[in-house]
Amino acid sequence: MSENPTTITAQPGTPFIEIVRDFDAPPALVFRASTEPELVVRWLGPREVEMRIDEYDVRPGGSYRYVHSDSDGTEYGFRGVFHGVSKDEQIIQTFEFEGAPGQVCLETTTFEDLDGRTRIRTNSVFPSVEARDAALASGMEHGINDSMDRLSEVLAEIGA
Amino acid sequence: MSENPTTITAQPGTPFIEIVRDFDAPPALVFRASTEPELVVRWLGPREVEMRIDEYDVRPGGSYRYVHSDSDGTEYGFRGVFHGVSKDEQIIQTFEFEGAPGQVCLETTTFEDLDGRTRIRTNSVFPSVEARDAALASGMEHGINDSMDRLSEVLAEIGA
Repeated sequence: MSENPTTITAQPGTPFIEIVRDFDAPPALVFRASTEPELVVRWLGPREVEMRIDEYDVRPGGSYRYVHSDSDGTEYGFRGVFHGVSKDEQIIQTFEFEGAPGQVCLETTTFEDLDGRTRIRTNSVFPSVEARDAALASGMEHGINDSMDRLSEVLAEIGA
Repeated sequence: MSENPTTITAQPGTPFIEIVRDFDAPPALVFRASTEPELVVRWLGPREVEMRIDEYDVRPGGSYRYVHSDSDGTEYGFRGVFHGVSKDEQIIQTFEFEGAPGQVCLETTTFEDLDGRTRIRTNSVFPSVEARDAALASGMEHGINDSMDRLSEVLAEIGA
């Protein structure tokens, strides 16, 4: 593909990151792939890491924790709680990289129906501009682009 | 008191609100008054409302919901989940006014020990500058000032 189909917007001097991506699958399928642990484990993260899910309990008050392991065995943990879950429509959750403890961000993901296709839009807000900039500097854009491409592949498989 | 002892900072064009207030009580007591429902119900909110707590489960993954009722019986519900709780030190939680559904903010409150006194510092970040401005326009500063004064009064009583 010649153009990156995922749009990542991070205006300088703000604590926001917005991610937009369209998928050739209906919202119910994209929501399923975003909430069932056995599907999430197949796409969340960059291709070069192994993912292990300790918990992925998508309901208001539910918690999640997962670990990415790179090729030399280094582990990176991530955790959070779900504030609100509207089936096939919206998920609001906290997100913390355990390597930057206390720098928790809030993510609002909407699943917009585009006549049978789906636009995912995630608005992430960090507790400071500096925390947002540190997250960007850590290479998260690479992980987001890989994740969205891998999700598209999983959707093609489960929707087939 | 001639000066307002609570500092509320909301820089224009940002989604942040910072609240700072010092109390004549040690962190363990301020933390207790901030987490035990039978104490929280005595100070959280402006003086002119009645508060009812449906749930106040301060632990990671715990939820809370409370309702303020004004003199003509109108009810205002608030809810969220706790992401992280460090006893006597820090609470990280989501916050949603049910009258503005989906506009969830993330609040990080630290309890700093000032040689036996305590500085509470709450950093709130909203999903957009517009959502932050709408919250400010709703009169939340009045509620914060009352809450902090009332907490000071509760601390004087339970610490005596």
